[in-house]
Amino acid sequence: MTEVVIAGIGQTEVGELWDIGLRELAFDAISEAVKDSGGLRPQSLFVGNMLAPNLSNQAHLGALLADYAGLVGIEAVTLEAAGASGGAALREGYMAIASGMVDVALVVGVEKFTDKIGSDVEAALATAGDADFEAVQGMTPTGQAAMLMKRYMHEHHVPADGFAGFALTAHTNAVGNKYAMFRKAIKPGTYSKAEKVSEPLNMFDIAPTADGAAAVILTRRDLLPKDFAYPLVKIAGSASSADTLALHDRKDLLYFEAAQLSAGKAMKKAGIILDQISFFEYHDMFSIYGALALEAVGFAIHGQGWKLAGDGAIGLKGRIPCATQGGLKARGFPGGATGVYQAVEAAAQLRGQAGMNQIANAKYGLIQSMGGPASTVISHILEVSE
Amino acid sequence: MTEVVIAGIGQTEVGELWDIGLRELAFDAISEAVKDSGGLRPQSLFVGNMLAPNLSNQAHLGALLADYAGLVGIEAVTLEAAGASGGAALREGYMAIASGMVDVALVVGVEKFTDKIGSDVEAALATAGDADFEAVQGMTPTGQAAMLMKRYMHEHHVPADGFAGFALTAHTNAVGNKYAMFRKAIKPGTYSKAEKVSEPLNMFDIAPTADGAAAVILTRRDLLPKDFAYPLVKIAGSASSADTLALHDRKDLLYFEAAQLSAGKAMKKAGIILDQISFFEYHDMFSIYGALALEAVGFAIHGQGWKLAGDGAIGLKGRIPCATQGGLKARGFPGGATGVYQAVEAAAQLRGQAGMNQIANAKYGLIQSMGGPASTVISHILEVSE
Repeated sequence: MTEVVIAGIGQTEVGELWDIGLRELAFDAISEAVKDSGGLRPQSLFVGNMLAPNLSNQAHLGALLADYAGLVGIEAVTLEAAGASGGAALREGYMAIASGMVDVALVVGVEKFTDKIGSDVEAALATAGDADFEAVQGMTPTGQAAMLMKRYMHEHHVPADGFAGFALTAHTNAVGNKYAMFRKAIKPGTYSKAEKVSEPLNMFDIAPTADGAAAVILTRRDLLPKDFAYPLVKIAGSASSADTLALHDRKDLLYFEAAQLSAGKAMKKAGIILDQISFFEYHDMFSIYGALALEAVGFAIHGQGWKLAGDGAIGLKGRIPCATQGGLKARGFPGGATGVYQAVEAAAQLRGQAGMNQIANAKYGLIQSMGGPASTVISHILEVSE
Repeated sequence: MTEVVIAGIGQTEVGELWDIGLRELAFDAISEAVKDSGGLRPQSLFVGNMLAPNLSNQAHLGALLADYAGLVGIEAVTLEAAGASGGAALREGYMAIASGMVDVALVVGVEKFTDKIGSDVEAALATAGDADFEAVQGMTPTGQAAMLMKRYMHEHHVPADGFAGFALTAHTNAVGNKYAMFRKAIKPGTYSKAEKVSEPLNMFDIAPTADGAAAVILTRRDLLPKDFAYPLVKIAGSASSADTLALHDRKDLLYFEAAQLSAGKAMKKAGIILDQISFFEYHDMFSIYGALALEAVGFAIHGQGWKLAGDGAIGLKGRIPCATQGGLKARGFPGGATGVYQAVEAAAQLRGQAGMNQIANAKYGLIQSMGGPASTVISHILEVSE
């Protein structure tokens, strides 16, 4: 199968970007990625977006963004898998190149949340859950996460501040990421004193909804410009797996099975084992998701994932660095753009462009894009060639 | 590249299906398709849907429908390109098989429009247009089509009933399709006397929004069951092309450039010329779309597409049969399911299962899934092997 390489990356800052619209936001990331690729011209555009039809009354982003980027005539389509929409777009781009059907693919994730008030956004986010059996009862993603965290703390005897390390790590790393929403480290005491949002979740257990756009250009190795300036990053593995939307349909509430399945398949395709992974960009929309993802992928045994956050194992110099640019918690959670941010950040790590957040000798990065509580999990292994 | 074959087809009736929910509707089509394939088990599910997040408060259909179909763990994602969402899902399924990454793919299109009142649906459909420059002014798809039709009639001196043949043909063909919404032929006088909806469009120029679901199972030729019961239908060509959303951004209002581009590319991949196409399933959401699609693909010269509807050329025994199972106009327009209905209907034609609507010696079918006024056009060539 054709080798799929990342030829260009681009991203906008993440935050409350009230002075810029959806198409302009996407365009900024696209033009940065195209420039970074040395000017490759895509034949296909895959958009990751979750809620523009709801929050901006704008569906049909494929054609809209292709036009706005001066690419009328190319293939363009939107991928949606709730919070995993960005990962889904990346995977379709990967498939298009790997199949040999497309020479150059543009993947862009874009989301505009903050034009609406918080309760509208929360209601829109609840469309990621089971509308007929969960949302109709008032259940939201935050409500789901609170139940998971409470059960986890009960079963595994986690102390009150047991999850603090996830937020502390994310905020520490975001300081070095100029695109991050919250570039400010926090202290353990800040976490402890934070207000509860939905008990036991406090505001530092929850990633902030935000606006943002990120883009990557994918191509085959032989189509790269001759003077390509960076160490070569390729997508060595890609896999996607689905689980139930509703928590009451799960056999085991505290087992993110789709995270295990998709990571396992992606590693198999890449021909690597867990120990070879240099860093892990997980989908820490809630700190409990971080713990459960670490366990599902195999970095911790069942019930022990939370301890990796407390003992420094997920720090930049730890055993398995996570959220190396701030993660969802501190870089911010721009919905369907998130999975593409992960790809951009991982590619920067592997190229050696991560500045003060650089992980030494990073060779393989695992990125995991998640919709709902691991209802959709899309995993990619990025690899830098010697 | 791997040969992609249609191993199974399934569909529900199209109409106002108030007694059945979104997931049950999709399931009915899926189970029919799986049964038709001899029980193949998909590893990937590609959903075509346009408005469930808006109209049913349900995003994340991939994981939802995979779970409901007993397929937890597989890949599952939704494709959105407004009215072309079904074609987009079909194309991703095609790509997944052609790349060799997936052995068996399930493509399902599903839409549930009629739980909401018409004005809500029209507002939701307007998200397919340019929200910031068209919809905000009150522009809807019907308004766009009225402007196109008026301009077309003016430029090409089309008489008042010049478009009648599109509706007459569609309704005539729907009589023989047990899944169609309107199984009733209409007379020329019925068209002439019909109320105007948005001048010059009357109600017979507009396809009815409807509920429905359709599904196909795709696989490689060598994975078909040994006792596969039908003539073999393969996807010989696939292409997708985007144009502007807003009409005011077009160079030529009356030229569906993306329809030409995607059909041309799909034919090139299939290695055929226009004359070899046995029938054309166009996206006749409005009769003017039918005329412009016939011209764009090359069946009529600029300004003359409407005449094919009047002189019998698009009838079942005509030069280029269109809407052979009733098209959007009379089978009904179930949003993002429409493109998958086209694939199911074309496969049935090529297998010789079209009953009283059977076209003799059909060898190649062109199906065209469209979002907005040809803002996204996804074309597939289906071919039956000897």
